[in-house]
Amino acid sequence: MKYTLANRMNGMQASAVREILKVTQRPEVISFAGGLPAPELFPVNEIAQVAQEVCAAEGRKVLQYATTEGRPTLRQKIADRMNRIYKSHLTKDNILITTGSQQNLDMAGKIFLNPGDVVLMEAPTYLAAINAFKAYECTFMEVPTDNKGMIPEELDKILASTPNVKLIYVITDFQNPTGICWPVERREAFMKVVEKYDVPVLEDNPYGELRYEGKTNPSLLSMDKRGQVMGMGTFSKTFCPGLRIGWLAASTDIMPQFIKVKQSADLHSSAFDQAIIDRYMEEFSLDEHVKEINDLYRHRRNLIIECMEKEFTDGTTWTHPEGGLFLWLTFPEGVSARKVFDKCIEKNVAGVLGEFFYPTTKSDRHMRINYSNMPDERIREGIRRMGEALKEVKEGK
Amino acid sequence: MKYTLANRMNGMQASAVREILKVTQRPEVISFAGGLPAPELFPVNEIAQVAQEVCAAEGRKVLQYATTEGRPTLRQKIADRMNRIYKSHLTKDNILITTGSQQNLDMAGKIFLNPGDVVLMEAPTYLAAINAFKAYECTFMEVPTDNKGMIPEELDKILASTPNVKLIYVITDFQNPTGICWPVERREAFMKVVEKYDVPVLEDNPYGELRYEGKTNPSLLSMDKRGQVMGMGTFSKTFCPGLRIGWLAASTDIMPQFIKVKQSADLHSSAFDQAIIDRYMEEFSLDEHVKEINDLYRHRRNLIIECMEKEFTDGTTWTHPEGGLFLWLTFPEGVSARKVFDKCIEKNVAGVLGEFFYPTTKSDRHMRINYSNMPDERIREGIRRMGEALKEVKEGK
Repeated sequence: MKYTLANRMNGMQASAVREILKVTQRPEVISFAGGLPAPELFPVNEIAQVAQEVCAAEGRKVLQYATTEGRPTLRQKIADRMNRIYKSHLTKDNILITTGSQQNLDMAGKIFLNPGDVVLMEAPTYLAAINAFKAYECTFMEVPTDNKGMIPEELDKILASTPNVKLIYVITDFQNPTGICWPVERREAFMKVVEKYDVPVLEDNPYGELRYEGKTNPSLLSMDKRGQVMGMGTFSKTFCPGLRIGWLAASTDIMPQFIKVKQSADLHSSAFDQAIIDRYMEEFSLDEHVKEINDLYRHRRNLIIECMEKEFTDGTTWTHPEGGLFLWLTFPEGVSARKVFDKCIEKNVAGVLGEFFYPTTKSDRHMRINYSNMPDERIREGIRRMGEALKEVKEGK
Repeated sequence: MKYTLANRMNGMQASAVREILKVTQRPEVISFAGGLPAPELFPVNEIAQVAQEVCAAEGRKVLQYATTEGRPTLRQKIADRMNRIYKSHLTKDNILITTGSQQNLDMAGKIFLNPGDVVLMEAPTYLAAINAFKAYECTFMEVPTDNKGMIPEELDKILASTPNVKLIYVITDFQNPTGICWPVERREAFMKVVEKYDVPVLEDNPYGELRYEGKTNPSLLSMDKRGQVMGMGTFSKTFCPGLRIGWLAASTDIMPQFIKVKQSADLHSSAFDQAIIDRYMEEFSLDEHVKEINDLYRHRRNLIIECMEKEFTDGTTWTHPEGGLFLWLTFPEGVSARKVFDKCIEKNVAGVLGEFFYPTTKSDRHMRINYSNMPDERIREGIRRMGEALKEVKEGK
C-alpha cells in the first residue's frame, strides 16, 4: 500500500547515533559512542527487595490504572530533593511524572510549537531534543555559546529581533555533548534577559546530580519568579534508565497543559516503576548511591583525561567536565572529524561525530566521548587507538 | 507570564470522563462510570515472584537503556499469541512494544495526520482516541454504524467522496463504549471496501481476549494483504494496567515510522515491566489467567443484565456484550440522558454520559455502564438506584 505521511514526518529521522551505535556495538570495537550509565552500580538487589515489598504492601492498588500526574509521595520526594539540591521552591503540585525525561521534549513541542516557530538552542546540543522538536515542524536558531553556556547578550539580540521564538531549550549542567556547566553568574544573567520576553525556557537536567567536583549551582528554575522555566529531571542516571521514570517541574499555571497532553500520549507512567523508586528512596539513601556513582565517574574522567594528555599529541583539545558522562573533543584546524571517525573505526574504537549535535551549523571538527560506561583497561586501550588514528590522519595516512 | 500555546492545544480538553470520575469517586457513590479491570484478579504474587527472578537472572542488563522496538522475546510471544487467537501471520518484526496501547493513538496521529485531515470513526467510539487525534488538528467523520459495526456500503460512499481521509479508526471486539463485536462477515466486507483505497486502518483491540461466550473472530489485521491494517494491543485488561505495556502490530513497511516517532517520544517502554510480563508468560499460563477473568466478567455481565431486566421498566434498552467491560444504555425517546445522569448522582449512582463518546453528533439518549469492577451486592444496589432514577425522570419528577 502507498502510505501518505503527515508533513511533519519529512523532517524526522531515525537517530543517526542509533544507527552508528549499531556499528560500534560490534564486540571488537571499544566504543565511547554511547551514553549509558555504568550498569555495575545499578541497585539491583535493592530493586528486587522493594519490588517484593511493593507487591506485598500495595500490590493490587499499584497494578491498577493510576492518575496521569503520578504517585503523590514520589512527586513530593522529587520536589523536596530538587529544592534541597538546586534551591528551588517546588511542591508536589509542580511535579508531573513522565515516561523518561525524553517525554518532556515531545510534550513541550506539542504544547508550544506551531509549524515555522523558532526554538533557540545551544549549539551543539542534545540530539534527541532536536529530533523531538522537529516533529512539530519548527525551525532552530543556535544561540552563540561559550564555555560557560549561552551568551546572554547574544540571546537578548536574538530575542529582540526574531519573531515567533516559542521555546528556549538549554542543558545547564554538564551539557550533552560538551560536558560544560553554566556558572551561577551566567545563569543570573540569562534569567535577566529571558524575563523581558514571554518565551518559556525548558531546562533539561539529566546530569546535575552527577557532580564529582565543585559546588552545585542553583537551577534556572530556582531563579524563576514568573512560571517561565520548566525543569526536566530523570532517575535514568542516578538510579537506572530501564524503569523509564522522569519528571517535569513547572508552574501550576502551565501544568494542566502538560497533564492534558500526557493523558492522551500514554495515560500515565508505569505505576509499578514509580512505586519501586518511591520505596527505594524511603528505605535506602539515594544520596549515598549517587555518591558511589560519582566516585566511579570521577575516577573514569581522571583516567581518560590522563590518557588523552599522553596519547593526543596532534593539538586536539578537550573539555574538562566537573560532572556528567561526556567530554567534547575539538580537532586541530584542518583535521576532519569524519576522517578521524573513519580511521577510528578501522582501529576498532569509536566516539560520536560532533556534526550530529548541531541544529543547523555544519561542523567537522568535533567528537563526543562518553566515559561513564567503560572499565579502565578499555579506556586506556581505546584512547591509545584513538591517538594513533589522530596521528595518522594528521600525517595524511 | 503569558503563555502562547500552539494552535493544536485549542482543540484538546482534559478528559471529561476524568473530571466526572472525580465526582463519582466519592465513596458513597456506586460508580459504573470507570473502565477499570477487576483488581482482585491481578496476579500480584506471580508478579512479585517474576520481578525477583528478573532481578536475579538479568538485573543489570534489564535496568539499562534498551532498544525502542522492545524486548525481542516478548515481541515474539505477542506475535505468536495474536496469530493463535486472531489468525494473523505476524513475526516479532511486526511488533513494537508501546507505553500502553494509548501511545499508539498518539503515534498514529503524528505519523498520518496533517491539520484538516479527516479521521473516520465509529460513533460512538473511544473517547481518548478522539482526544489523541485532536492534538493533530484533524476533523472527524462518523461512519454510520449498526449493531455489527461500521456499515461497509456507507464507508465506501464516504471514502469515494471525501478527500483527505488519512485514517480509519475502529474497535472491532466489544467496543468501548457499546460492547458490540463485528461478526466475521462484516469484517470481510469492511476489508473489501478499504482495500480499494490507500487509507490506513487502525484496529484497536484492548478487549478481544475478554470473550466469555461465542467464538473469537479473526482480526482485520489477519485479513490484510497489503500492510493497510495496524493492530493495537495491550496487557492492561488481561494482566494489569499499572505496568503500561501495550503493542503495535503492523507491516514492516510502516514500522520504521512508528519506531522513529516512539524514539523521540520516550526512547523505549519500561524494560523492567517488559521483562516481568515476558517471564510471567513463560512460567505461568496467561490463557488460564484470562479464563479466570472471563469467568468473573461473565458472571457480572449476567448479573447486571438480570438486574436491569428487573429494574429498568421504563423502556430503556441495552446491548448484550459477549465480552469486554461495557454495555450501552439507550433511553426511551424523549428521555434526556443528562437528566437521568443528574438524577443518578442525587441517588449516589453513576455511569458515563453517552455524549462524550461521539466525535461530532450531539447525543442525549445514552449512557455507558462498566460492570467489570464491581462486587455483586453493589451491582444489585446500583442498578436498583438507577432504575428508580429512570422511573422518576420518566414521571417528570
